[in-house]
Amino acid sequence: MTDTKGDRSKRPNKQTDPDAFLHIVDENDDGIIVRGAKIHQTGFLNSHRAIIMPTLSLRPGEEEYAVSFGVDTNEKGITLIYGRQSCDTRKMEKGKLDIGNYKYGGQEIFVIFEDVFIPNDRIFMKREIKFSGELVNRFAGFHRQSYGGCKVGVGDVLIGATSLISEYNGVEKASHIQDKLVEMVHLNETLYSCGIACSSLGFQREAGNYEMDMLLANVCKQNVTRFPYEIGRLAEDIAGGIICTLPSEADFNSEVVGSLLKKYLSTCNEVSVEDRYKVLRFIENLTMGVASVSYRTESMHGAGSPQAQRIMIRRQANLESKKKLIKEILDIN
Amino acid sequence: MTDTKGDRSKRPNKQTDPDAFLHIVDENDDGIIVRGAKIHQTGFLNSHRAIIMPTLSLRPGEEEYAVSFGVDTNEKGITLIYGRQSCDTRKMEKGKLDIGNYKYGGQEIFVIFEDVFIPNDRIFMKREIKFSGELVNRFAGFHRQSYGGCKVGVGDVLIGATSLISEYNGVEKASHIQDKLVEMVHLNETLYSCGIACSSLGFQREAGNYEMDMLLANVCKQNVTRFPYEIGRLAEDIAGGIICTLPSEADFNSEVVGSLLKKYLSTCNEVSVEDRYKVLRFIENLTMGVASVSYRTESMHGAGSPQAQRIMIRRQANLESKKKLIKEILDIN
Amino acid sequence: MTDTKGDRSKRPNKQTDPDAFLHIVDENDDGIIVRGAKIHQTGFLNSHRAIIMPTLSLRPGEEEYAVSFGVDTNEKGITLIYGRQSCDTRKMEKGKLDIGNYKYGGQEIFVIFEDVFIPNDRIFMKREIKFSGELVNRFAGFHRQSYGGCKVGVGDVLIGATSLISEYNGVEKASHIQDKLVEMVHLNETLYSCGIACSSLGFQREAGNYEMDMLLANVCKQNVTRFPYEIGRLAEDIAGGIICTLPSEADFNSEVVGSLLKKYLSTCNEVSVEDRYKVLRFIENLTMGVASVSYRTESMHGAGSPQAQRIMIRRQANLESKKKLIKEILDIN
Amino acid sequence: MTDTKGDRSKRPNKQTDPDAFLHIVDENDDGIIVRGAKIHQTGFLNSHRAIIMPTLSLRPGEEEYAVSFGVDTNEKGITLIYGRQSCDTRKMEKGKLDIGNYKYGGQEIFVIFEDVFIPNDRIFMKREIKFSGELVNRFAGFHRQSYGGCKVGVGDVLIGATSLISEYNGVEKASHIQDKLVEMVHLNETLYSCGIACSSLGFQREAGNYEMDMLLANVCKQNVTRFPYEIGRLAEDIAGGIICTLPSEADFNSEVVGSLLKKYLSTCNEVSVEDRYKVLRFIENLTMGVASVSYRTESMHGAGSPQAQRIMIRRQANLESKKKLIKEILDIN
Repeated sequence: MTDTKGDRSKRPNKQTDPDAFLHIVDENDDGIIVRGAKIHQTGFLNSHRAIIMPTLSLRPGEEEYAVSFGVDTNEKGITLIYGRQSCDTRKMEKGKLDIGNYKYGGQEIFVIFEDVFIPNDRIFMKREIKFSGELVNRFAGFHRQSYGGCKVGVGDVLIGATSLISEYNGVEKASHIQDKLVEMVHLNETLYSCGIACSSLGFQREAGNYEMDMLLANVCKQNVTRFPYEIGRLAEDIAGGIICTLPSEADFNSEVVGSLLKKYLSTCNEVSVEDRYKVLRFIENLTMGVASVSYRTESMHGAGSPQAQRIMIRRQANLESKKKLIKEILDIN
Repeated sequence: MTDTKGDRSKRPNKQTDPDAFLHIVDENDDGIIVRGAKIHQTGFLNSHRAIIMPTLSLRPGEEEYAVSFGVDTNEKGITLIYGRQSCDTRKMEKGKLDIGNYKYGGQEIFVIFEDVFIPNDRIFMKREIKFSGELVNRFAGFHRQSYGGCKVGVGDVLIGATSLISEYNGVEKASHIQDKLVEMVHLNETLYSCGIACSSLGFQREAGNYEMDMLLANVCKQNVTRFPYEIGRLAEDIAGGIICTLPSEADFNSEVVGSLLKKYLSTCNEVSVEDRYKVLRFIENLTMGVASVSYRTESMHGAGSPQAQRIMIRRQANLESKKKLIKEILDIN
Repeated sequence: MTDTKGDRSKRPNKQTDPDAFLHIVDENDDGIIVRGAKIHQTGFLNSHRAIIMPTLSLRPGEEEYAVSFGVDTNEKGITLIYGRQSCDTRKMEKGKLDIGNYKYGGQEIFVIFEDVFIPNDRIFMKREIKFSGELVNRFAGFHRQSYGGCKVGVGDVLIGATSLISEYNGVEKASHIQDKLVEMVHLNETLYSCGIACSSLGFQREAGNYEMDMLLANVCKQNVTRFPYEIGRLAEDIAGGIICTLPSEADFNSEVVGSLLKKYLSTCNEVSVEDRYKVLRFIENLTMGVASVSYRTESMHGAGSPQAQRIMIRRQANLESKKKLIKEILDIN
Repeated sequence: MTDTKGDRSKRPNKQTDPDAFLHIVDENDDGIIVRGAKIHQTGFLNSHRAIIMPTLSLRPGEEEYAVSFGVDTNEKGITLIYGRQSCDTRKMEKGKLDIGNYKYGGQEIFVIFEDVFIPNDRIFMKREIKFSGELVNRFAGFHRQSYGGCKVGVGDVLIGATSLISEYNGVEKASHIQDKLVEMVHLNETLYSCGIACSSLGFQREAGNYEMDMLLANVCKQNVTRFPYEIGRLAEDIAGGIICTLPSEADFNSEVVGSLLKKYLSTCNEVSVEDRYKVLRFIENLTMGVASVSYRTESMHGAGSPQAQRIMIRRQANLESKKKLIKEILDIN
């Protein structure tokens, strides 16, 4: 969905480079030719096909930008460029503990369309600018709804890791530790509540599909742009400074200094030093490493940056009906 | 539900005055005699009957405090004492505008039971300490759930009033005003989401009744102890200092200074000065006046003070299952 | 300083009523005649003389509004109208405990100037629009600086009252109570730090007077628009719901129900019930009663509303010099 | 200062491994032998000498842990182990842009003392447990004071970078962008105010040295555990998702895809694509990369974790004097 956007103060058709937003550059009887780029693509690399759509509501004169279609991810003319993530090259190091989370992960892709041909039967929207705003808002609504599940699951694991490290450090019974864990859970479950609420108040469209509650989906995402940061901050608080001064796995296993490190990283008797090492790396991974990309920055910008939700909240807020309430109470008019 | 509690550092049966928590003082074949007080009673004054229950989980030795029953609110031995609220006597003044909200309101009652007789057929719990904790938690759960609707409705009216006053002042288009209104809506709808979520995830008990999701009901109420304060703060911000320096209705209608006040309280051409006066008083009413009691302090303490919810969130958080998640990811154990 | 401002979306000279901002309406050899109103005047009532100045920076065409002068507060043509405050009439009730703070208080006045004559030797500014902006900003700067002392003192007393009520209730050793008191102190001392900082970085003008640091004075006041609200919220949390359901002093001393109330308001053995009553009323007074006007709403709007400080912070922020720092680090340009 | 601490629920002399806190293991006429480790050492690697001191207040029976001395950083028996930081290996990659900040940086060291001999003339404290608490508190006080300058400087550069990227993206005039920049400045200057305040209220000890105000130094550091996180969050908001999906410098300069990337990373006409690349990497560096270690986690834990400051704030708060204020106002006692 996301175009590169060029100069944000200008509309798509006023950009110096017309390709700053993906658009139709040519057409024949069999289909269209498109050019442009879609960035921040999370699942593109591990998908066979993708659906492309505009990134904003379009106006008369911007018809060539109103285009949506399906495409094979290895279609001729498509170039995928791997994005960098914090700590990405740890995945290529010899060991596995410094990766933080050696089982799971993801990767964003910069996707460039150089005159890609899209046959007619794969085109969903072609120059219908009047539907573009609704398409963007609805898709964004579904995407914002989903964050009330996605980031909450990650939050659960981070809370688990933080709880575990407090146990490993011997502080799990301190009242301020317990209180911070409660706060982490409280914030995470508030996000979950928002996800559940916009789903529960969903409704069926005439076409048969179900749609979330648009206002609450935006409220959900808006909270997602805030709470994971605070949850992460509390995790860093409880885990301790060691998450960012911990020596490397190579040192940990070194014949020269390994035993010294193991000695000094020991905490409670029943705790395995390696397990503690793993959990510390995992918390680093989620707060500063590879996974912070998806837990923090993607929480901020995925499915639209915070201001996009605020615009939608304002539109959906129905302030006029709220003014009516107060007028009725106070016999105004 | 709420007892006066005496010294909060002591259990009911260790209080200097055994009546600090309502309890059974005598019993015969037909019923029991109870003594004590229940305070912060919001609907008691306008109800025919009330259900009384313990305020905390009880332990062996505290059986006399494990008592729940129905009672007529004008039963012999019951004394009702009206509580004071901020600005309460404005309701007894000559005019009506200074009341803030002259149509709606409520009142808390201090209820004293001096050896009230409760016949057997109105007793729901008598010394069954083992059920007292569950009774308290479930009732509190339902009550905490309800705040996700109750306070949100009040919030809607406050947002309406704030939106209206910004229009009356000619500032409704200022970007910072719009942004603050969006924030008020966002916070209010987050509370609503919490109310919807703990209801949507409700389930049916074997007895046939439905129960809310206990964790999310506590999360809901915990947010209610925070957001109405911030919503109120933003309302005060937008409304302006005039909410707390506005002269009295008597002055407003005075032959001597009334016309001067009307002249200087005028804002935009199409705005009635009296309507503006009403809305300003309404916002004062909700942020500092009679209604601040229910919108602010009751949001804090109604259905249990914030710490009560935190204890429940900790109990329901299931940290062990979250630790399991991280152990699985990191191959620990 | 504060004019009534009429329609906030219009400049002074575009208002329907030209008196919405105080201005010169006539002039002779001996002085000028002014008309308009100044509102939210905190010390006016208990002062012999006052200095009047414009409320905003003025532009060409608005010369008549660029006026500053000294005036006796009982000068011919001046009308003072008492503003209402939350719970104001409690001061006129028979008892004194329900007042909350029966020793200290203040009162805002609505001051109307109906063609008041100002002799030449009392005029400080007459139509010099080019100085009006600087005058407003500097005065506001001094005023904003002062809030780092004024509201901190009130905060100290509120923290003392909250600490005392926690002792009276027998909960002062609970970890969550201690933590909330620490937070109250922390926020209050942050305000104090801001007051000290903008004073410490003050400098001497050529005229010999000292001036605060303008950026930090605005930062100080901006924090004052936030932290007293949170400090008050924590006070309400610790004090308990009783602050807004407590029966009246008349009931407390009544022959009929007084002894019952005293019995049920008792907490710890060594605590006087009346002392507890006083402290609860004091906290009500500061969070919802008369003093909430000065502790909360005046913290918000006194010396300029929050947005006024944000405008000044932006102007003083010197973003260009900060951009230079990053350009130097990154060899840009 | 910081020991590895073993099981945090146990005192130094109750640890399974007595070396969990650095201590004296032997002594002769010429000096002492010490063993243990000091971690999170920021400047150790680039210093010739270091001063070692205890990490907590010590009690009778813990005399061997009350030890402070000067030592050459390459003394016999000392082993330095490099800690890992997020994105550390980028410094070893071929290019320099992906480093984020290729001119400046730092590195934490894990320092192990294996029976290091300390001659008498370098020993400052030897078993004087009664001074250990005061030493720790005062040193921490100075350290906490310094954060009001250190992190504020970093904040200035981050604000500059964020301001610059908003210009590069063409959004610097959007009201929500301006408002967020104001908030970043406001928070950063609040930290600065705290640093200035605890310094301004400093006083001279009899020995001639100057000492900061202890309460305000702790208040300063407590704010440092919060605001850089929010400043960073706002930077991520303004910079956009591209900070964590930006392809590598190698791709950027690649013959195959470099020109495509340059085309699609262009924004406004006058903006150099490479400059934009640099600024984005710099923001990544400070929010997730190498420098997030010092800007975020060190802000949290350096000079003591948040709870350490809260304990000091409680001790310095002088709640008794605040209770006295309220008692005087209310004629209590």
